[in-house]
Amino acid sequence: MSGLGEFDLIARYFKRPARRSPLGVGDDCALLAPAPGMQLAVSSDMLVEGRHFLSTVDPARLGHKALAVNLSDLAACGAKPLAFTLALSLPGVDEAWLEAFSRGLFALADAHGCELVGGDTTRGPLNLCITAFGEVPAGAALLRSGARPGDELWASGTLGDARLALEVFRGTLALPAELFELARTRMERPEPRVALGQELRGIATAAVDLSDGLVGDLGHILAASGVGATLDADAAAALIAVCADPGRAAVLSPELRRACALAGGDDYELLFTAPPAASAAVFEAGRRSATPVARIGRIESAPGLRILDAQGAPVVQRFAAFDHFQSTP
Amino acid sequence: MSGLGEFDLIARYFKRPARRSPLGVGDDCALLAPAPGMQLAVSSDMLVEGRHFLSTVDPARLGHKALAVNLSDLAACGAKPLAFTLALSLPGVDEAWLEAFSRGLFALADAHGCELVGGDTTRGPLNLCITAFGEVPAGAALLRSGARPGDELWASGTLGDARLALEVFRGTLALPAELFELARTRMERPEPRVALGQELRGIATAAVDLSDGLVGDLGHILAASGVGATLDADAAAALIAVCADPGRAAVLSPELRRACALAGGDDYELLFTAPPAASAAVFEAGRRSATPVARIGRIESAPGLRILDAQGAPVVQRFAAFDHFQSTP
Repeated sequence: MSGLGEFDLIARYFKRPARRSPLGVGDDCALLAPAPGMQLAVSSDMLVEGRHFLSTVDPARLGHKALAVNLSDLAACGAKPLAFTLALSLPGVDEAWLEAFSRGLFALADAHGCELVGGDTTRGPLNLCITAFGEVPAGAALLRSGARPGDELWASGTLGDARLALEVFRGTLALPAELFELARTRMERPEPRVALGQELRGIATAAVDLSDGLVGDLGHILAASGVGATLDADAAAALIAVCADPGRAAVLSPELRRACALAGGDDYELLFTAPPAASAAVFEAGRRSATPVARIGRIESAPGLRILDAQGAPVVQRFAAFDHFQSTP
Repeated sequence: MSGLGEFDLIARYFKRPARRSPLGVGDDCALLAPAPGMQLAVSSDMLVEGRHFLSTVDPARLGHKALAVNLSDLAACGAKPLAFTLALSLPGVDEAWLEAFSRGLFALADAHGCELVGGDTTRGPLNLCITAFGEVPAGAALLRSGARPGDELWASGTLGDARLALEVFRGTLALPAELFELARTRMERPEPRVALGQELRGIATAAVDLSDGLVGDLGHILAASGVGATLDADAAAALIAVCADPGRAAVLSPELRRACALAGGDDYELLFTAPPAASAAVFEAGRRSATPVARIGRIESAPGLRILDAQGAPVVQRFAAFDHFQSTP
């Protein structure tokens, strides 16, 4: 705790000169000037202690994650990050915490050329609200509503590891130290798939970011597109980083692997659809963005979601999306 | 409390079709398309229970105020409101609260043609974070940095009433019922000076919205513009709505009136500067926007702030700006 006031706090930890925006931190508003022909994509996420992060999290990782979850939304729209605002409610002024938080935040922001242009700080229960802005050529944004029957269903990167780490923190699961560190890093330091999202413009027919769990977020694409799908549960479960080699996979039961991959939440990967004829282009987009991509299902005209195992048999396990008002983290 | 989930809650209370924005609530991002030649003004404010509002506040008024404080920032830049995002942390799902909150929110939004395009809801201590977007012709935004020696200092509307109401709630002050209702309405239902802000483009040299108190917010203009000022404390104190007629003014001591007008906070009026030659244009801007405007001081080249009474004698009272990290509301 310190006697640092609101404006000193902003000046010390959060005020940096705007380089790309016409006006940044320090006036009543920031000013953004999207390039001609560009639309502005806007995403806003609020992170609450105990629900989105544990009170023990490294504040540098929290700074990273608070921005990452918003950049993941921009990525899912195919937008290029431009700027963000940060509203912060803090129980008090802890300078070591603020230093680490802002360091983690700005490291990710700088990596994506995304500058802090404004926001708010107040005293209250710890709460982080970031609104991020990206630009996308008019009409080129990836939406949830474009999936068509026959499209293949793809996922980027790895799935389920964040949930595995959460279960270890909860005490319901034990993992060898090395695997726990891997899973914990995926939970605390997700890498938003910003480059892949932009590469997928003009290739993917629909996209969503995976935040509430694969089955739940796929449901958004199906509802918005008016289609159904078949999901290959084992192809999805194979994307758990902790299980990347067969020896590791044996640590976890097949049921747990499916549950974490299909309904774990907190993945911040992209789930997207593309016609089979575009599969080479999808792999090329993955290569150009250095992001693994994998086919995990197919869009169909029959409504609803069918979940099959590697042998094509229905998986009877129930997978629920994470709902902040109905689940306890 | 109810079993309503996050997506049902959004659909029932917060999802309305986007009419002006290319894409509204329901995808990973919203899309905004500022008109050619326009810059986007962005403001973000976070409201926390117990600090920015009392737990007993009428939720319809809270919905109004949460958006109003952001529209006031847009007004101070001379921007025309376009859209906003709402991130909401709620301790639980109280449908009566949500119905009233959203009703108050949308009534103000509709009055200003400002549409809700996205956001987030989660469970946690009550916290409201709104990010609002407005458009302003490139180069025309009112900034804090444009005040020049010789400019007159103006304030819109009324000052200090919100603080009077707060003091009644705190039990440090008694007011007749009729005056308390007037003050309370100013505290709970501020009217952002959106029309005046736009009328002042090209007339005012600098502007700021009054949220932390006149003296503190004037300090932002002085610092950003590299100037000083003389403030007429009694001209400012005369702007208290509760004291609008001489009989009413007698209820309050001169010291209390000055303290509330100069450092009360929560006014959401505009403080702005303009050259003396523009005074007729300022009055005309006030008339066109149906907003009272009053001269309360003058910008000078000598740094610092001099506070004088109606007789030109220095006021020795101390006025501190509201600081969320150093004051207790």
